[in-house]
Amino acid sequence: MSRFYNLTQIKEVLNKLQPIQEIEEGFVAYSKGKTEIPPVGELLFEKPPGDVHIKYGHIVDDDYYVIKIASGFLQDPQANRYTSNGLLLLFKKGTGELVCGLIDECHLTNVRTAAAGAVVAKYLAPKHINCIGIFGTGTQGRMQLEYLESVIDCKDVMVWGMNQKELDEFKEYMAPKGYNIRTTLKAEDITAHCNLIITATPSKKPLFPADLIRKGTHITAMGSDTPGKNELDPRILQKADMVVADSISQCLLRGEIHHALKAGMLGKDGIVELGNVIVNPKLRRASEEQITIADLTGVAVQDIQIVKAVYHALLDES
Amino acid sequence: MSRFYNLTQIKEVLNKLQPIQEIEEGFVAYSKGKTEIPPVGELLFEKPPGDVHIKYGHIVDDDYYVIKIASGFLQDPQANRYTSNGLLLLFKKGTGELVCGLIDECHLTNVRTAAAGAVVAKYLAPKHINCIGIFGTGTQGRMQLEYLESVIDCKDVMVWGMNQKELDEFKEYMAPKGYNIRTTLKAEDITAHCNLIITATPSKKPLFPADLIRKGTHITAMGSDTPGKNELDPRILQKADMVVADSISQCLLRGEIHHALKAGMLGKDGIVELGNVIVNPKLRRASEEQITIADLTGVAVQDIQIVKAVYHALLDES
Repeated sequence: MSRFYNLTQIKEVLNKLQPIQEIEEGFVAYSKGKTEIPPVGELLFEKPPGDVHIKYGHIVDDDYYVIKIASGFLQDPQANRYTSNGLLLLFKKGTGELVCGLIDECHLTNVRTAAAGAVVAKYLAPKHINCIGIFGTGTQGRMQLEYLESVIDCKDVMVWGMNQKELDEFKEYMAPKGYNIRTTLKAEDITAHCNLIITATPSKKPLFPADLIRKGTHITAMGSDTPGKNELDPRILQKADMVVADSISQCLLRGEIHHALKAGMLGKDGIVELGNVIVNPKLRRASEEQITIADLTGVAVQDIQIVKAVYHALLDES
Repeated sequence: MSRFYNLTQIKEVLNKLQPIQEIEEGFVAYSKGKTEIPPVGELLFEKPPGDVHIKYGHIVDDDYYVIKIASGFLQDPQANRYTSNGLLLLFKKGTGELVCGLIDECHLTNVRTAAAGAVVAKYLAPKHINCIGIFGTGTQGRMQLEYLESVIDCKDVMVWGMNQKELDEFKEYMAPKGYNIRTTLKAEDITAHCNLIITATPSKKPLFPADLIRKGTHITAMGSDTPGKNELDPRILQKADMVVADSISQCLLRGEIHHALKAGMLGKDGIVELGNVIVNPKLRRASEEQITIADLTGVAVQDIQIVKAVYHALLDES
């Protein structure tokens, strides 16, 4: 039978990998048209609320294709807290043989998402960061911060949450890792103090009004991965000097860009794709005054890259 | 970790199940709108030629959702022979927990497809069958015959193939099971002698011209599961008294009905859905003279039904 690996086994090899580099290469391949990635498959559940995403595809020159299943179901309606789960499957082209299954319980989705946040910050964040602002106290909020460490030289962090309990937990978890953490329940505290802002919530309505955004701010929005989710006021995208999508075709259908297009606040021509930002310095932040926005909806090429890297590391182990 | 079962374990419990009944109930739930089944996910490969289908969804009242991955890659271009592979995954609603994985190497897809053929024959075949005609000597051609046994009282079979070697192999395999097998390389032999015809090939062009089809014939076409595959001359669907789809929404995009619609030989209103045929006797063959066609593209509800049945049987075993 094919080999399956559990989360413990996956975590053991992850520290030998360089996910940020793998993900960066994936976005480049994607924007160069070297991948085949169909639209995201989706199941939406009402009771209890939840969603399942199937992301799949292949890099044309690879020997493999990958199918990733990731779910999020609401566990705690009061805190709007979701539980994630899922697995990744690596198949061999030409035979359809299942090479391996990574029962990652969504951890690799978190890793490749956090790594994408780091890639974005590397190319789009202002040179000097006063304070990193994080909306959302969940796993992704924490991991974004951890993955930013290698690309952003700033340990001052302000985090926004829905209640003081989750904020205290966030602080308790992250402070020992060397961060100066301030917490707030007011969105305007984040926009006033932070020039690198990450939104990592499952919000269905904008987290703050557009006029709070100051010049020289970069925002990476990664919470919205279904058509219904929405973290950013569409007017923020209208106000921005630069709007970057992880996948233009995907952002037309889901995420913040989708909402801004629908609201008539943004035109398709105003969107740049992340893989092109990486290869073309002219497509990056032009001054420290600009407002830049990146919308991450999560692209299968990230899953393809991470599953291949983990699989090869697991092979080396055995 | 979740439980995975291999083909040997799956086959051990299959003989305790009644797949035809499970599949029939699935089609009824589907046509009654009690399921949520998004469009099929698909990867098409050119070199070597192959396709991967992701079929997924859930029955609204069930506790589970199911994702099925099935691939077919060309192994022997001369014989147009594909190798199949795949697996089925059963997840728990509300948590996204992977309940079990059935590494069935495509066997359960074959079972649920053959069972669908039997359901169709039960409701649409003429009362008296002279001879069963099979196009295609592959696994599905053989399994269709085996699953017809419980619904069709006829042991005379004529099989068409692309060369005598594969025909001889088919005969050698099926004759000991009590069938009188004749073989032919000429399609017109099948249409002349058989009033229940099954097409189970990966053909990309029609297998025989429409004028060969005689009154009182039923054809079940199950080979076409991608937009590019095509077993039946669209004029056969025009000529038919009744055209049945396993899923109308799916048959608009792939399979024989899709080709006939595209060729202007059929209107959408002329299509009946299998689940409705099962519950409504008025939607069945009206006389022994009618020509009836069923187009099976394979619906996720079949996968949902078979994986649940196998999983429960495996639980009973342990």
